[in-house]
Amino acid sequence: MSTVNQNLFKGVWVPVLTPFAADLSVDGTALAAHCHWLLEQGADGLAVFGTTSEANSLSVEERMSLLEALVEAGVPADRLMPGVGCCAMGDTVRLSRQALDYGCRGVLMLPPFYYKGVSEDGLFASFCRIIEQVGSDDLRIFLYHIPPVSQVPIPASLVARLLQSYPNQIAGIKDSGGDWNHTCELLERFDGLRIFPGSERFLLDALRHGGAGCITASGNVNPGGIRRVYERWSDGADDADDTQHRATAVRDVLEQSRMIPALKTLCARHYDDPVWATVRPPLTPLSDPDRAALFERLDQIGFSM
Amino acid sequence: MSTVNQNLFKGVWVPVLTPFAADLSVDGTALAAHCHWLLEQGADGLAVFGTTSEANSLSVEERMSLLEALVEAGVPADRLMPGVGCCAMGDTVRLSRQALDYGCRGVLMLPPFYYKGVSEDGLFASFCRIIEQVGSDDLRIFLYHIPPVSQVPIPASLVARLLQSYPNQIAGIKDSGGDWNHTCELLERFDGLRIFPGSERFLLDALRHGGAGCITASGNVNPGGIRRVYERWSDGADDADDTQHRATAVRDVLEQSRMIPALKTLCARHYDDPVWATVRPPLTPLSDPDRAALFERLDQIGFSM
Repeated sequence: MSTVNQNLFKGVWVPVLTPFAADLSVDGTALAAHCHWLLEQGADGLAVFGTTSEANSLSVEERMSLLEALVEAGVPADRLMPGVGCCAMGDTVRLSRQALDYGCRGVLMLPPFYYKGVSEDGLFASFCRIIEQVGSDDLRIFLYHIPPVSQVPIPASLVARLLQSYPNQIAGIKDSGGDWNHTCELLERFDGLRIFPGSERFLLDALRHGGAGCITASGNVNPGGIRRVYERWSDGADDADDTQHRATAVRDVLEQSRMIPALKTLCARHYDDPVWATVRPPLTPLSDPDRAALFERLDQIGFSM
Repeated sequence: MSTVNQNLFKGVWVPVLTPFAADLSVDGTALAAHCHWLLEQGADGLAVFGTTSEANSLSVEERMSLLEALVEAGVPADRLMPGVGCCAMGDTVRLSRQALDYGCRGVLMLPPFYYKGVSEDGLFASFCRIIEQVGSDDLRIFLYHIPPVSQVPIPASLVARLLQSYPNQIAGIKDSGGDWNHTCELLERFDGLRIFPGSERFLLDALRHGGAGCITASGNVNPGGIRRVYERWSDGADDADDTQHRATAVRDVLEQSRMIPALKTLCARHYDDPVWATVRPPLTPLSDPDRAALFERLDQIGFSM
């Protein structure tokens, strides 16, 4: 079973939005500032370069230069879980090695996602080869299960095979499938793994079933509110369910918009910088009416970032 | 309407398999040899770095070094249509520029394929930005519609918008949707575009409706047989349908196997080099029984590469 540091990789992790300049180039300064703000607000860690980060709209070189910029800007490497999973194994290996070189203690790994309907043997071979090529005992992989986007699931049977072959490297799972029954199955079956649902909607339920916390997009705008659920649960407080309901109410509103542009729109208001709302194609920003509706709905539940 | 050279981009184009060494590194020498063989057999052109080429299992650097190796090995650049579409626009721009620099007259472009359910506006913005960033009047794009794999279609309405904005750059479509009705719609609606169905199954029908030819995986092993359909149709010969039936019979057998490993297995036998059968994960090679069944079925219809 995995020997992950017990103080790391639990609680509320945020797949950090990637800010772009008006010309769509990456803005490492704004990214570092947002990372610092999230940690100040109580985020336990930062899953940079995830789906919410538009990481697959970045080149490998852009991801590498951003990670360097973050570490240089004083974002603690051991609070980072960079996304590294690409279609090409060589790219995944390169990003994983860099993350280790910079002192990151874990990486978030998508399966190769271009070919669909591939066999479990093929996915197993892919992860095995990546682990062998990275060639480090320090590698800790969080498997990234997000079938609604990747269209390539990481079934529990594959997790079991990987865990048997690489008990030290397979550290956990981000389950963004949105199916609580599947998360439950993972929690029951893989007792020693850090299981993070991909939404705070399931945070308290997951914690009560042995989950590690959550890795959630809306943590970009509501890190404190989501962290409170974790704290109240940790403290055994009576109002843990109340904090969950409040966090879920915010999530409910966010899910009425397209998530990534909505979160960036809220950051643009928070940082008083309209450029923050920029997304890279194929994503598109919220229209003016959609932005107004988002703001109004959040006002109605008394939420502000 | 597009000003594609009338002598280029018609007939039988082959999305060339990418051979790997036993250590899974790319084998540029074997790739060049296969390209030369395909042209000798009558292939009109080579759509290197497509889906069949496992191009998305290659890094950007690997694709660039392979294109360089092909041109250095004497494969004519104007017979190449390199695949350039990546999730990240910057990568697509980089590959497109290299293709132009090496004298390729057209590129095959997937839409960005990580995010699913994206808007037509977002896809339009993505293609527009790529065209602007490449910034060359010589760019000729063949839009790559392959929803079974990419899960991101290029609908006819998007083609129309792109054609209106960039009549010189939008040169054609590879339609690998497998839906003849959709191909027909494209043929009727976009009279001046080069429309290539993604299977020789539709070759004669496409030609009779104004299609340019086909771009087909099985061209890797049956280039002569497929080229014969095109020739007989060009000549107005009576036996065009017979040649189509013979080509389709081979296709029928190939489709009973997993296509890419099956084609590589046939190349391994043809070139008497078992390493040719190597695929990169997440693909897996054919099992011994599956290979034997493939050979037997092809024997039964009297086909050999």
